[in-house]
Amino acid sequence: MYFGSDNQTGASPKVLGMLAEANNEYSHGYGDDRWTDQAIEALKALFECDLEAYFVATGTAANSLALSCMVQPWEAILCHDSAHIILDESTAPELFTGGARMLSVSNGQGKITPEHLENYFQTIGTDYPHNVRATALSIAQASESGLVYTPTEISALSRVAKGNGLSIHMDGARFANAVASQQVTPAELSWKAGVDVLCLGATKCGALCAEVVIFFNKELAKTFIHRRKRGGHLLSKGRVFGAQMVGWLQDDHWLELAKHANTQAAKLAETINGIDGLQLVWPVESNELFVVMPKGLATYLRDAGAEFYDWYVDTLPPNVTLQDDQQFARLVTSFATQDSHRQEFSELIRGYFIS
Amino acid sequence: MYFGSDNQTGASPKVLGMLAEANNEYSHGYGDDRWTDQAIEALKALFECDLEAYFVATGTAANSLALSCMVQPWEAILCHDSAHIILDESTAPELFTGGARMLSVSNGQGKITPEHLENYFQTIGTDYPHNVRATALSIAQASESGLVYTPTEISALSRVAKGNGLSIHMDGARFANAVASQQVTPAELSWKAGVDVLCLGATKCGALCAEVVIFFNKELAKTFIHRRKRGGHLLSKGRVFGAQMVGWLQDDHWLELAKHANTQAAKLAETINGIDGLQLVWPVESNELFVVMPKGLATYLRDAGAEFYDWYVDTLPPNVTLQDDQQFARLVTSFATQDSHRQEFSELIRGYFIS
Amino acid sequence: MYFGSDNQTGASPKVLGMLAEANNEYSHGYGDDRWTDQAIEALKALFECDLEAYFVATGTAANSLALSCMVQPWEAILCHDSAHIILDESTAPELFTGGARMLSVSNGQGKITPEHLENYFQTIGTDYPHNVRATALSIAQASESGLVYTPTEISALSRVAKGNGLSIHMDGARFANAVASQQVTPAELSWKAGVDVLCLGATKCGALCAEVVIFFNKELAKTFIHRRKRGGHLLSKGRVFGAQMVGWLQDDHWLELAKHANTQAAKLAETINGIDGLQLVWPVESNELFVVMPKGLATYLRDAGAEFYDWYVDTLPPNVTLQDDQQFARLVTSFATQDSHRQEFSELIRGYFIS
Amino acid sequence: MYFGSDNQTGASPKVLGMLAEANNEYSHGYGDDRWTDQAIEALKALFECDLEAYFVATGTAANSLALSCMVQPWEAILCHDSAHIILDESTAPELFTGGARMLSVSNGQGKITPEHLENYFQTIGTDYPHNVRATALSIAQASESGLVYTPTEISALSRVAKGNGLSIHMDGARFANAVASQQVTPAELSWKAGVDVLCLGATKCGALCAEVVIFFNKELAKTFIHRRKRGGHLLSKGRVFGAQMVGWLQDDHWLELAKHANTQAAKLAETINGIDGLQLVWPVESNELFVVMPKGLATYLRDAGAEFYDWYVDTLPPNVTLQDDQQFARLVTSFATQDSHRQEFSELIRGYFIS
Repeated sequence: MYFGSDNQTGASPKVLGMLAEANNEYSHGYGDDRWTDQAIEALKALFECDLEAYFVATGTAANSLALSCMVQPWEAILCHDSAHIILDESTAPELFTGGARMLSVSNGQGKITPEHLENYFQTIGTDYPHNVRATALSIAQASESGLVYTPTEISALSRVAKGNGLSIHMDGARFANAVASQQVTPAELSWKAGVDVLCLGATKCGALCAEVVIFFNKELAKTFIHRRKRGGHLLSKGRVFGAQMVGWLQDDHWLELAKHANTQAAKLAETINGIDGLQLVWPVESNELFVVMPKGLATYLRDAGAEFYDWYVDTLPPNVTLQDDQQFARLVTSFATQDSHRQEFSELIRGYFIS
Repeated sequence: MYFGSDNQTGASPKVLGMLAEANNEYSHGYGDDRWTDQAIEALKALFECDLEAYFVATGTAANSLALSCMVQPWEAILCHDSAHIILDESTAPELFTGGARMLSVSNGQGKITPEHLENYFQTIGTDYPHNVRATALSIAQASESGLVYTPTEISALSRVAKGNGLSIHMDGARFANAVASQQVTPAELSWKAGVDVLCLGATKCGALCAEVVIFFNKELAKTFIHRRKRGGHLLSKGRVFGAQMVGWLQDDHWLELAKHANTQAAKLAETINGIDGLQLVWPVESNELFVVMPKGLATYLRDAGAEFYDWYVDTLPPNVTLQDDQQFARLVTSFATQDSHRQEFSELIRGYFIS
Repeated sequence: MYFGSDNQTGASPKVLGMLAEANNEYSHGYGDDRWTDQAIEALKALFECDLEAYFVATGTAANSLALSCMVQPWEAILCHDSAHIILDESTAPELFTGGARMLSVSNGQGKITPEHLENYFQTIGTDYPHNVRATALSIAQASESGLVYTPTEISALSRVAKGNGLSIHMDGARFANAVASQQVTPAELSWKAGVDVLCLGATKCGALCAEVVIFFNKELAKTFIHRRKRGGHLLSKGRVFGAQMVGWLQDDHWLELAKHANTQAAKLAETINGIDGLQLVWPVESNELFVVMPKGLATYLRDAGAEFYDWYVDTLPPNVTLQDDQQFARLVTSFATQDSHRQEFSELIRGYFIS
Repeated sequence: MYFGSDNQTGASPKVLGMLAEANNEYSHGYGDDRWTDQAIEALKALFECDLEAYFVATGTAANSLALSCMVQPWEAILCHDSAHIILDESTAPELFTGGARMLSVSNGQGKITPEHLENYFQTIGTDYPHNVRATALSIAQASESGLVYTPTEISALSRVAKGNGLSIHMDGARFANAVASQQVTPAELSWKAGVDVLCLGATKCGALCAEVVIFFNKELAKTFIHRRKRGGHLLSKGRVFGAQMVGWLQDDHWLELAKHANTQAAKLAETINGIDGLQLVWPVESNELFVVMPKGLATYLRDAGAEFYDWYVDTLPPNVTLQDDQQFARLVTSFATQDSHRQEFSELIRGYFIS
């Protein structure tokens, strides 16, 4: 019963199969190969536009390299209080941007709102070069609370952000899950709503290690190849990324994988919602569940072999107070979550409350 | 009527005189001169302890270089929401620390409290290397609201900070004013209360350009000379700093200058407190006044030749709301503020409200 | 006929097979998995010592992160004039070290000698913090000219280097080839000869993407996990590296792969040495051949479908002058080079000179 | 008898007087003052063109900040083997450029020649982003050997440099001496010959601390104010630089000071040239003398109270070999060198050889 993270699985058989297929040939290094080319063409088709796309091995690399193309070292990046880029990626953004500043603006809500941005711009000092100017906004899709931004919401953020000179970065480590949870296209959820740069992650949703930085705003991509190389992120056997991505994108495989994960999460949410002693802190809109539960239950589940993380208490919304005997936990489903595991886990929960 | 900043004056005649005196001789460069030696000896006497002291030209350089000795590039510095180091020094801390993170913890109060720190440590993630660990606390003395920390307050902060592995930096751009406003010694206000590194500024209080980074915790000083040199902050004619500092420290000159500035501020505060339409946002404990005033008054004063700054609205405490016809202003007095100027300014204010 | 680079192949079937095997299970992320553990144990056995080992995806990342643990930002790294780290890795060392300096010391010879180092230390300025102090030496094994350092040679370099306060880094992108070409153990070729940190590369010799930074001097490893994370080089599905490395190390597979590559190179060298119009610039001691050839031959071979690189003219030794009708080329063999390809290539060469 | 460095003096009385004069008034901070304005106007008049000019306290800061505007972090700066920026300024260029690389190209000659550049461009690898591309050339005027570049020489360098996409930086720590030694204008020695950015130093030639970064190519200046601020190099009392520079430039004071220094050097050179046991390594064209002398003489002179530096042996030209009983020394004259001191020093030298 693995609900710890969507990175606790291997790759989907289809993705792994494509990697094995690509293994059996000679090709040029550093991304000059037919798998990489094919993956980029697939991305253009998927997003219905021209774009530049560059592969890297980790989400941290993707986000930090993308942001380094969007701000100068004396500028700032606005993001959610509990964004992965500010909480979980060490000071990678500072390293790659040459020392730009991370600023959080959301005050305990699950998503950034236009009001957060407006408030920021109304009160912040603008006496340059003394003050630090924000020039990029980063939002996560799905958000760090498992919520999804709608195209309308992104457009509204974009209007305020661009009106103040910011470009827009989307951390799409769970972009697939966000698409799967809405009746929208990838284009509608990204560039059509104002996103300049999307870090699309396949790793959490069926690949071994494949993240791609997609520049819809190609002007921002000018320095990327230099930044990637000096960051040590240019793989010599570039096909490793290309092949995984080809397999992942083919025949909407990525979307099926994401749908499966989301469905498992929705079913788990149903179970949890049906129990009085449990509280879902945020609506379950993708593949993550944030649960306030009795400490006893957490122990009970883990003793039974279940895996999940205690979660950062400082990311609780202001209206939720943790009691002494309560614990804040995160459950994550994935493309590989099996009905049987979810059901066993659900039974354990129900059993705990009955006993 | 200059109340814009304490950097709008030249040096005190005594400080300038010492610089002129030092001009007339040969000496070695880079701080290997008798003026620098004498200044360091004077600092040891003033602080009643052994210490290491290094001179630089600006407060930004002093703070950033000091902090770079206290944190690793993957660590964080805690400070007040409106600290000079986070609001007014661009991303200098990030440059010099190699990309460490600035984190504010004070939530709209005028000074950092032990509760701010405790709350931070109780809720923050500690899953390294993913999360960013805070390893330094920076406080400003006087604070960015013109308030002073007492030795007891600093000790209380220090206990929580050091209990969590942080070393303590004090931004002493107005340390002289803070000493002058309390019946305490420089030692009591610094190392005796737990401060590891003090950036003592003479520039705002009577020098032309002379800041000194004082390491009470000499262990932290090990890399300083390399950091200063590669920051371009090692002056070839080192006597420039040494001589100013000798003049500044001699015969308690620094303290007299600070007392004068504080007294002028206190008298101005009296005037302001006596008028219904004006509000001092913070108690006046050093040489800065933060005033909510009618917009009309601000215009009236400036038309009459007075200088002062509009201040950052985001630094207002939560209990103060700015009306549409109001303005938030900062007034600063200095060693050079003359009674006549202050009186003229006060008359203008009174006149505005009578008319 | 691929002689362009040893990164133009996929993985060996055995390495790929192990990756596929590891794919089929749940495990913790970020290297907390049994494959990573097993790989580290295998490294300890191979090197006959305790060590710390960290995996990354590229040689540039491995080298730069390793070096960042060995020098301060105001120090320098000595290396060969044509070292990969100075010629082919952009300014990655500068990024990760925070701005340390790369200095080359070899003056056109194929390997660094103790005399190079002695000359450097005798003439360089030591007026710190003005001058830049070298504190690390980096050597490549096999060298950038395809030569191998013997244990005796490494020990001699080490004596001079350590006598001057330097620690020793070995770029082992082709360490397997260097071991395969000598009757020595991995231990004799690394820590027993004074190497502190070895970047051992599997990618060029049979893996898809697997490099490991091995700290024999564990003191130097203290900050590595932070540096790797903030560099975006901590893979979430850590087994990707672990599994490849397990497969690579098992049953001396790595050594067989390297021997095969070396043998192909030796046979090709024989062919070339037998032809008057061709000159091998350096003895062929591993899997690289550096050849001065008629421009016509280069064109002829490429027209026939052969792949190889023109090589950096500034890496030619002083005693070799390139004529107008000559070209400087590099040929690389790999674990995947087939006899048939090599023979076809050799026939083409011979044919050119007969015709 | 101070011949150690031109930074061992104070300021000229005229420069100091202007600083004292500027001290007696209120003015805005951060360079928004009439002294700074006046200095910039004087620079425009002196250089007969429009320009942007920014003041800082040290030559290291001036050079590093200037270079940071000229190269990206993944690019390189070409300079002379013994350039101050590569030998004496720690890794300041790396810090401010964000990790660009310093490359020396001169091979032991006193000045960089067009051939040095041509050779570099003909042999260097251009496989980006792997290789590092040079995009700036830095020359020192006067050079680190005390030689001066003529306008014709600079133009010739400029042609090769710009033909290869490089912009040109001039380290003018001794620009005044270089102008004084030739019958040319400052314009002819800078922008008219192709210089894009000049770091003009007053400190070594009569100021206390005043260096100015002059952008003839204003396009390159766009980010300077941000870089200066975050480098901690924006002085709050900006008049400190402005006033010194006004005094220095007024009535060709700077040129008189430089001429005096040069004349003293020329006379000292005459003495040295007249003595068999002494060798001037380079022609004396500004205010520095590089002398190979008997070790006994060096001791004798120092015992008599003379000050001068032993100089970097690795900067000796290839045709000069130091014997065991010889020492390599640098003598520097300054605006403050008195005839009597020079004569006393000369007498000591002559006395040594007679005795």
